[in-house]
Amino acid sequence: MSQAKSYAALSATTPLAPFSFERRSLREDDVNIDILYCGVCHSDIHTAESDWGPSNYPIVPGHEIVGKVTEIGSKVSKYKVGDVVGVGCMVDSCQHCSHCSADLEQYCDNNPVGTYGAHDLIDGTLTYGGYSDHIVVREKFVLSIPEALDASKAAPLLCAGVTTFSPLRHYGVKAGDKIGILGMGGLGHMGVKLAKALGAEVTIFTRSENKIAEAKKQGADHVVVSTDDTQMQAVAMNFDFLLDTIPVQHDLNPYLNCLKVDGVHILVGLIEPMDPTVHAANLVLKRRILTGSLIGGIAETQEVLDFCAEHNIECDAEMINIQDINEAYKRMKKGDVKYRFIIDMKSLKNS
Amino acid sequence: MSQAKSYAALSATTPLAPFSFERRSLREDDVNIDILYCGVCHSDIHTAESDWGPSNYPIVPGHEIVGKVTEIGSKVSKYKVGDVVGVGCMVDSCQHCSHCSADLEQYCDNNPVGTYGAHDLIDGTLTYGGYSDHIVVREKFVLSIPEALDASKAAPLLCAGVTTFSPLRHYGVKAGDKIGILGMGGLGHMGVKLAKALGAEVTIFTRSENKIAEAKKQGADHVVVSTDDTQMQAVAMNFDFLLDTIPVQHDLNPYLNCLKVDGVHILVGLIEPMDPTVHAANLVLKRRILTGSLIGGIAETQEVLDFCAEHNIECDAEMINIQDINEAYKRMKKGDVKYRFIIDMKSLKNS
Repeated sequence: MSQAKSYAALSATTPLAPFSFERRSLREDDVNIDILYCGVCHSDIHTAESDWGPSNYPIVPGHEIVGKVTEIGSKVSKYKVGDVVGVGCMVDSCQHCSHCSADLEQYCDNNPVGTYGAHDLIDGTLTYGGYSDHIVVREKFVLSIPEALDASKAAPLLCAGVTTFSPLRHYGVKAGDKIGILGMGGLGHMGVKLAKALGAEVTIFTRSENKIAEAKKQGADHVVVSTDDTQMQAVAMNFDFLLDTIPVQHDLNPYLNCLKVDGVHILVGLIEPMDPTVHAANLVLKRRILTGSLIGGIAETQEVLDFCAEHNIECDAEMINIQDINEAYKRMKKGDVKYRFIIDMKSLKNS
Repeated sequence: MSQAKSYAALSATTPLAPFSFERRSLREDDVNIDILYCGVCHSDIHTAESDWGPSNYPIVPGHEIVGKVTEIGSKVSKYKVGDVVGVGCMVDSCQHCSHCSADLEQYCDNNPVGTYGAHDLIDGTLTYGGYSDHIVVREKFVLSIPEALDASKAAPLLCAGVTTFSPLRHYGVKAGDKIGILGMGGLGHMGVKLAKALGAEVTIFTRSENKIAEAKKQGADHVVVSTDDTQMQAVAMNFDFLLDTIPVQHDLNPYLNCLKVDGVHILVGLIEPMDPTVHAANLVLKRRILTGSLIGGIAETQEVLDFCAEHNIECDAEMINIQDINEAYKRMKKGDVKYRFIIDMKSLKNS
């Protein structure tokens, strides 16, 4: 066992604060990683604050982890000491169900083990995430960070990146397809870059005219102000896909109306309860699809890292120190970040 | 022009009553059909009573029409006098949009012309449906009734049949797939027969224990009583497809929970507004699909007729006289029909 420094939430109502705990000793297929950078995801806040039901405290958040291998178990073959690697939202899964066999660990029949707030499959101990100085993870759930990627900006690809990449791949988004990106936050802005790199014609939907210039800067071919009925009517029946990254309740019906026959509206956020409700007519009369997608599998996470390296895609991020994390949470709740916070984890040494 | 006898609704609140009108003279690509049988669809009631917005009265309902060709236009090549033919929900469409070109006339960009209550594309006159002694229809929208089908039972295939067949085909339901059929009315019982003929393992979901025997008689491999939580839990994550024919508002969430990862829930009814609302988690966490499907194209309508002839599938129906139509509507509203009324149109001669 090894002593770990971290920042943790001890309850739903206490701010994150320094916290020490024991990381497990290396198993034969484990990798020990010194954490260099950790992205800050909205899920971190939701879990720290028990928004999705009571969390298992203490919660050490962080599932966009980039670091350096410092030690490997006796049977580890894929990584060696010194490699720059990543860890995303999952650190284990059953490995024998049909979904694990199909590289869909996120849909594991026995539930994947979350990077934080979950229970290790072998010893039952609580998992602690990336707001910490090091992490011990089963080799199979460790990703290789390509050299061509800037390690200091790669972390958000491990969640925000794969969450948007996975449905684009699953539904076969390709050159010439028309896709609308709903929401321009951490996920939305990655969706724009990835869809553009896949060759699609990309439209950003935004509620505010003030964001048009920024949306174009992000690479969007077109911008639609969703609060303007005339603009929305002008793109009725226009899109093959909508990638909906809006993290709060919203009316899906005006967007569904923008899809062609057989068009696909993909939710990646848990906007519960969906209010207002969807009109069946918007699906039935045009054979449209409403679906959702959850992060991505491990192979697909490697794929998005390699894809971003090949296409020079990186997340727009603001680097912070771990001591600023509570302030960062406040800013995220106001949408005041372009587009992801990444914690420089060497700041933890000073805490 | 020719004088036609019919039963029509003159307003949303008046019962159907005898009504005479002029059918157009034959155009060069038209077929004149003496109507032998006409199925009674819930849409007939919804339109007669303006449930979907104000209808264009007088409404002569009926879009499950089987009859005999009595006359053909100069350019008609597919049919000859004496042929037994059918007409379904559409009598025309623009024929030049991408959907018409792809045999998806039901999704015509310029809207298909409904068999009743719509306006003819050439002269703008109101279309009148199958509760009449004869009908004049563009050859392209006329179906061939295979000899192997009992003409007196084939009419419901033209709407109830193709409405359930089209999504099964579109989503590639095949041998070994597990499908649940929701609702056991005119559409649901056709869904069971068609899915069985495609080789799927079919489960009927019913609200009532009293219907278990009837569901098995319909050919279902399994029956689940949807009001029994234990039975619903036992089939969680079990189905590849759900074909949802329930014509009234219902909670989709317990059913969505019965779908596997990537499972598809297909709506064929306009259950507006969808209440209670769908939980995004039921889609996102298992990458499930909620979709809808609208009748079927003309080629697909011919396909379901041929498929039913090949597989000895017919609709379970009760034959009535046109004079009984208002009573039949009352019984349909109570769900008191197994499973479709078909009007023997020779009864119209006595009206």
